[in-house]
Amino acid sequence: MDIKCHHAVSNVGTEQYIWFKIAEAEAAEVMLVTCKEKDESPALSLVDQIKNARQNIQNVVNATSSSRTSVKEEQVTSVLKNLRTNIQETLEKMQFLKATAERFEKRLDKLDGGVQSDKCVVESSGPSAKRKQPMWKQPHSKESRLKLYNSFTRKKEEFIPENGNFVKWYSCGPTVYDASHMGHARSYISFDILRRVLTDYFGYNVLYCMNITDVDDKIIARARQNYLLEQYKEKSNDVSKLLQDLQQAINDFEKKLNDTKDLDKKTMMEKQLTLAVAASTKLENSSTLNPELKENLFLNCKDPLSIWLDKQYAHTVSENSIFSVLPQYWEKEYFDDMDALNVAPPDVLTRVSEYVPEIVSYVEQIIQNGFGYVSNGSVYFSVAKFDSCPDHFYAKLVPEAVGDLQALQEGEGSLSVTTEQLNEKQSPNDFALWKASKPGEPSWNSPWGKGRPGWHIECSVMACSILGSSMDIHTGGVDLKFPHHDNEIAQAEAHYNTDSWVKYFLHSGHLTIAGCKMSKSLKNFITIKEALQKNSARQLRFAFLLHSWKDTLDYSENTMHDAVQYEKLMNEFFLTVKDVIRNQPSSGPEAFCKWRKEDLQLSETFSKLQQNVHVAMCDNVDTRTVLDNLRQLVTASNTYLANAHTQKATPNGQLLKDVAKYITWIFKVFGAISGEAEIGFPITVSGGGMQNSESTLMPYLNVLSTFREDVRNVARNYKVTEVLALCDELRDTELPKLGVRLEDKEGARTVVKLVDREQLMKEKAEKKLAEEKKRKEKEAAKEAAARKKEEKEAQKRIPANQLFIGQTDKFSQFDNQGFPTHSADGKELSKGQSKKLRKLYDAQDKMHQEYLQQNGTQSNGPVPS
Amino acid sequence: MDIKCHHAVSNVGTEQYIWFKIAEAEAAEVMLVTCKEKDESPALSLVDQIKNARQNIQNVVNATSSSRTSVKEEQVTSVLKNLRTNIQETLEKMQFLKATAERFEKRLDKLDGGVQSDKCVVESSGPSAKRKQPMWKQPHSKESRLKLYNSFTRKKEEFIPENGNFVKWYSCGPTVYDASHMGHARSYISFDILRRVLTDYFGYNVLYCMNITDVDDKIIARARQNYLLEQYKEKSNDVSKLLQDLQQAINDFEKKLNDTKDLDKKTMMEKQLTLAVAASTKLENSSTLNPELKENLFLNCKDPLSIWLDKQYAHTVSENSIFSVLPQYWEKEYFDDMDALNVAPPDVLTRVSEYVPEIVSYVEQIIQNGFGYVSNGSVYFSVAKFDSCPDHFYAKLVPEAVGDLQALQEGEGSLSVTTEQLNEKQSPNDFALWKASKPGEPSWNSPWGKGRPGWHIECSVMACSILGSSMDIHTGGVDLKFPHHDNEIAQAEAHYNTDSWVKYFLHSGHLTIAGCKMSKSLKNFITIKEALQKNSARQLRFAFLLHSWKDTLDYSENTMHDAVQYEKLMNEFFLTVKDVIRNQPSSGPEAFCKWRKEDLQLSETFSKLQQNVHVAMCDNVDTRTVLDNLRQLVTASNTYLANAHTQKATPNGQLLKDVAKYITWIFKVFGAISGEAEIGFPITVSGGGMQNSESTLMPYLNVLSTFREDVRNVARNYKVTEVLALCDELRDTELPKLGVRLEDKEGARTVVKLVDREQLMKEKAEKKLAEEKKRKEKEAAKEAAARKKEEKEAQKRIPANQLFIGQTDKFSQFDNQGFPTHSADGKELSKGQSKKLRKLYDAQDKMHQEYLQQNGTQSNGPVPS
Repeated sequence: MDIKCHHAVSNVGTEQYIWFKIAEAEAAEVMLVTCKEKDESPALSLVDQIKNARQNIQNVVNATSSSRTSVKEEQVTSVLKNLRTNIQETLEKMQFLKATAERFEKRLDKLDGGVQSDKCVVESSGPSAKRKQPMWKQPHSKESRLKLYNSFTRKKEEFIPENGNFVKWYSCGPTVYDASHMGHARSYISFDILRRVLTDYFGYNVLYCMNITDVDDKIIARARQNYLLEQYKEKSNDVSKLLQDLQQAINDFEKKLNDTKDLDKKTMMEKQLTLAVAASTKLENSSTLNPELKENLFLNCKDPLSIWLDKQYAHTVSENSIFSVLPQYWEKEYFDDMDALNVAPPDVLTRVSEYVPEIVSYVEQIIQNGFGYVSNGSVYFSVAKFDSCPDHFYAKLVPEAVGDLQALQEGEGSLSVTTEQLNEKQSPNDFALWKASKPGEPSWNSPWGKGRPGWHIECSVMACSILGSSMDIHTGGVDLKFPHHDNEIAQAEAHYNTDSWVKYFLHSGHLTIAGCKMSKSLKNFITIKEALQKNSARQLRFAFLLHSWKDTLDYSENTMHDAVQYEKLMNEFFLTVKDVIRNQPSSGPEAFCKWRKEDLQLSETFSKLQQNVHVAMCDNVDTRTVLDNLRQLVTASNTYLANAHTQKATPNGQLLKDVAKYITWIFKVFGAISGEAEIGFPITVSGGGMQNSESTLMPYLNVLSTFREDVRNVARNYKVTEVLALCDELRDTELPKLGVRLEDKEGARTVVKLVDREQLMKEKAEKKLAEEKKRKEKEAAKEAAARKKEEKEAQKRIPANQLFIGQTDKFSQFDNQGFPTHSADGKELSKGQSKKLRKLYDAQDKMHQEYLQQNGTQSNGPVPS
Repeated sequence: MDIKCHHAVSNVGTEQYIWFKIAEAEAAEVMLVTCKEKDESPALSLVDQIKNARQNIQNVVNATSSSRTSVKEEQVTSVLKNLRTNIQETLEKMQFLKATAERFEKRLDKLDGGVQSDKCVVESSGPSAKRKQPMWKQPHSKESRLKLYNSFTRKKEEFIPENGNFVKWYSCGPTVYDASHMGHARSYISFDILRRVLTDYFGYNVLYCMNITDVDDKIIARARQNYLLEQYKEKSNDVSKLLQDLQQAINDFEKKLNDTKDLDKKTMMEKQLTLAVAASTKLENSSTLNPELKENLFLNCKDPLSIWLDKQYAHTVSENSIFSVLPQYWEKEYFDDMDALNVAPPDVLTRVSEYVPEIVSYVEQIIQNGFGYVSNGSVYFSVAKFDSCPDHFYAKLVPEAVGDLQALQEGEGSLSVTTEQLNEKQSPNDFALWKASKPGEPSWNSPWGKGRPGWHIECSVMACSILGSSMDIHTGGVDLKFPHHDNEIAQAEAHYNTDSWVKYFLHSGHLTIAGCKMSKSLKNFITIKEALQKNSARQLRFAFLLHSWKDTLDYSENTMHDAVQYEKLMNEFFLTVKDVIRNQPSSGPEAFCKWRKEDLQLSETFSKLQQNVHVAMCDNVDTRTVLDNLRQLVTASNTYLANAHTQKATPNGQLLKDVAKYITWIFKVFGAISGEAEIGFPITVSGGGMQNSESTLMPYLNVLSTFREDVRNVARNYKVTEVLALCDELRDTELPKLGVRLEDKEGARTVVKLVDREQLMKEKAEKKLAEEKKRKEKEAAKEAAARKKEEKEAQKRIPANQLFIGQTDKFSQFDNQGFPTHSADGKELSKGQSKKLRKLYDAQDKMHQEYLQQNGTQSNGPVPS
């Protein structure tokens, strides 16, 4: 049936119009009949199918009750699989049905509206017949929604926060016992980017919580060893005792080396051993222990010695504070690194050491819920109990890893895996919630005796303390997946008796160094500080952005080369655009001219690429594709500029500015630009951005100076020395720090001088250097003059008849006054030559005579001729 | 059937497990049977219903073919309405069905996963049996989506752009023939806010196009009149000729006034007439025309004179350039105003004068499509033709206004509504696409002769030239709805033969001035420049933000008072937070301390209010509610701070900073902060706009404040009042001049606030005034007390025998001690009366005796009795 032809005859007239309505209704009926044919009553058939499936399963069980269970299982699984497929198909059919019905309803809506509107045209002049607005069509659009790669499903899942626009986020922070390396940077930069994108691109209100693990077996061991080594070093002055201890330490270390199976670790230990042996030999040969030798010895023998000391004296270390110095130091270093990398600080920071009471009561709740048990002063989590509970599932992230005892024991910590400790557990799969502390380990009071938290419990407790009983996002490095994160989840779900504590678990990928695996224990890492010496924080970030956050990233020359090139391309573009807009009016009517065809084309490309960027952002924050699209945008803009140049047309500064602003904005979102410039990378002018500071500051400094002067005068009158001291301190300590120099003048106003502090220091140093140089030059000149004088004096002491005697390279014969007569080759000297020489001879004679007179001695010649 | 009990017996063992599966399947079956009962096969019943409806309609038509059509229509409408209701119900049923099926599928999924996971527990040690991840539950959340109030439906509709994240937006710009007033500000600020919110809050990539109407009847008339007046003025030196012309002009004007019906307009014209008559009389009396008199004359007679001149000489003006000077001038002024208001410039600006060729070909296409016709050199749009087409609908925005000829003619323009022109149209509802230009009007060539574009066509053409055949958003003032926007839509839809050129049409509300209507023609407007003299751009914006953009806004003292108060509250908060964080470490470990209960509470309030803000943003960009929630956030934060102060706890700077940053961000989104400061309003230090002045100054001011505090403490100890006075003077006089406010806190650090200097001076003046008032009141009270005392003293000086003597209105006879014996009417006083008087007499005597004793003088009575 053709609706259009009915349209054609239905121009005006109510009767025709109603016929038209009937035709529409008929058309709709045809639509629904088709729909019915496709339908076959889905719900009914579904019920039948389920009935059949149930029957089939029962049959399987009945028929093969004596055969192997695995065959049964296979059959049941197959029946269920078929049933699922059928349900899927039925759902799709119903989806079609629903869509058709909706379409029909809309059509009907329009018809209904049409009845009234058409009526109005018919009676348009009548004031009582008001026209009504027609049906409005809601636009349909393929809308991109943010999807994140969720470790719970190993798929990209649409991101839906629990509370509208608010996102609760917990991120596993560092265990602070050593310098942060590029492996850490991998996580922290990746999550910084994700956090910024969710906040600044997608507009979520994010509460970002991160922990600092400052109670940990690694920290304890390291802190204790450092402490013992330092103590030992202080007391070690007896060489023979030291040599004896060293030998024992080295022997122990050698034994340990032989027991080590990991090849990388073995190699490293061999190196450490060689160093220690060499240092020990050196000591043996020198017999005395001077400070330099001692320093070197302790540096090179650090590893064997501290292990040996720890083995012997660990139990003597008991003060908790000994274990907090080390993490405090490395926490500070960590924050310095993050600042240098432009990683935004968390909204909330939690430290394990601050949450021990909360941890204790959390563990109590887990025990009460039946998932924890006390054993020998420690508390363990019963994995079997938890997993057997129908509402729970152990190891949601890496179910394949259940039973991986090596991973589990690494998670327990090096101080917590003695045979005795392992035997305390009901099952090797169980893990510690609370560890009884041995002597030499820090401890807190608990209902189970003195102890400390297990590794995994801290994150569960701190996250819940801040974020409550569930969160939207949990992030961490991929190496933390099992057992750490799986145990964290088990604990929290056991505590709250829930089954979805974390909604989206995101893991950043591994980092390799030029293709090689990097690992904490191997010490083959490149620290963040080292990396920042080679490249700027922005270049590092571009390197990260050019790779997917969830995949392995190789930190290598190539990687960094690409990043540097990318930065360069962008920078050139920014500079070009800035130049274009600097040379055009920036506001008012002249800033706008009619768009040419080329402008429209660029604008179209611009919006198309913006769409690509958006789709890429939604696609698990695919920064690589985003950067690629921005590169295309720059290329298109450059082509546009080149064309404008060829055609001698003025490029559209407004449009180019919009393009550059957009790219700048995306870079800001990514944390690659932290300045506030509208376009481009921030420019650091040498000496820093204090441009107009003097005119700004001076009025304030004058007030300060006058106030100080007035106060000082009063204080002098009343002899309030404390105030006078404050005045001096201000002048001599506080203000110089800010580059302000006060010069007190007796009987006159104090002079205020604003100087650049750095500059001042540099100038001062230079001045000192110049003075030193001048002084040295002066000294040298003085010395040279003295030398010259000395030489002259020496010359005077030579009698004229000795002047030429020694010059046998020039002359061969002399007369009795020592005057040369023949040249070296035996020829008699010419008259001219003799004349010249005579002049020299006479001058020397005169000088020598004067010398003799001054010194009152007799010459030994020449005799007067 | 209880699934739980099956669970209980299914701990291990494959056989039991399979029985459990069967039980699960049974449970699911029960679910679906229930579902079937509710279902009753919806699709089938739907088809039947439609069949019935069709039959009913046919019956109606057949049965009543001879009766009135309106009855038929009613019946058909009723049938359709019932059908629609039924479909709605069916859809709901199907929804239930679908949800049930999905729920079942998920359950099945979990069971399937369960088969494998349970298996793993059974054979956990076997390496071949890998566990699989369990089912993941996607979070469900009531998500807010942006809705905009769409003039097409007069409802809030979910905003769905056609192309993902990309938004094409056309906004009606100004007709540049006069100064922009607050009515204009209403639109431009409102849309600037909407645009910023869509871009910066919702993250859309917006292409924002705006036009400048620089060809228009109002511009033509004004430009021509200005030109003719200027010409005439230059040549006018003959007083008698001038007086004669003036008389004619005034007579004409008077006639016009009498014909005017609009009361407001009449009032205005009367004023203009009075001015002109007075000026003319003045000229008559002075007889010579000095320059000042001339200037005044032409100023006061401008209106009658230029109308009169235009009527006479309009046809002599032909140069197009004469008509472009005026719009160029006002365009520049417009941009200056927008800059001053911080309204962001459009991405693309189009001017009518630049798009005439495009307009011509657009009109040609409309004619070709059958919706335009040529008449007498002009081209008109046939409303009837368009509206009768089934795919089109005329006046979608204001269908009620169809036939409103006054509105339509206003839209045609003052130069285009002569009877001749109106008669050219096939229907009075038609409107001009192209106007043949008369002499004295600018013109361009076209296939229909020399002419110029109609008003409405320009927007259709320019929008399409930049944005293509459809757009997401069109904005404009509410007064443009009909006919301008409705005609724009009709033209574009006629041109493209589409039915939804614009998806969302948004109209900003009216603006009233202190409750009164404001209108261009009445000249009762307040220009933007005038408004900016009273309030800052930010205050004006806050006033707008405190009202819904689509409703009427009243610009009044009250409105501005609220805005100023709001700004003040926010500013105080920013300054307080800045002070808190300045005095805490901003980075490194010390920047983070453990969150207290109060911190968690504030954080919770913070996120709750953020959610409210988000919901309000989604709700048609409800800025009023947003601002209200921010106010609540500030109140909560202030309470938190006050509590911290009371408890002597350190407030959480990190959290307060997040709060202040968030508020600042929202204000940036709203365009109320354009600086780049992380927190607060940008501060202009004396002398102007140093952006980074705060970060530059603060270190110095802190040193100053600390120094002063130290000095002050010492001075207090030693009671050096002069130093204390200096400290006060610094706080109260010197620093305020520089915009620095010190707030001394008893027992706590002095708070340093860098504030706007003007603001501070104003506050100071107010404080001084208040103090002055207090002082005066005190003085007055003191004087009154002194007067009272004086009166009492005077009373004491009176001897008792003189007390009653003078009271002849009360008494007629006295004894020798001056005690009254008879009342004024000659009657002897009663005992009671005497007793009362005696008391008074004795008291006075006692008082007087005391006075005499104190002053050492003798009384002149009474003598002792």
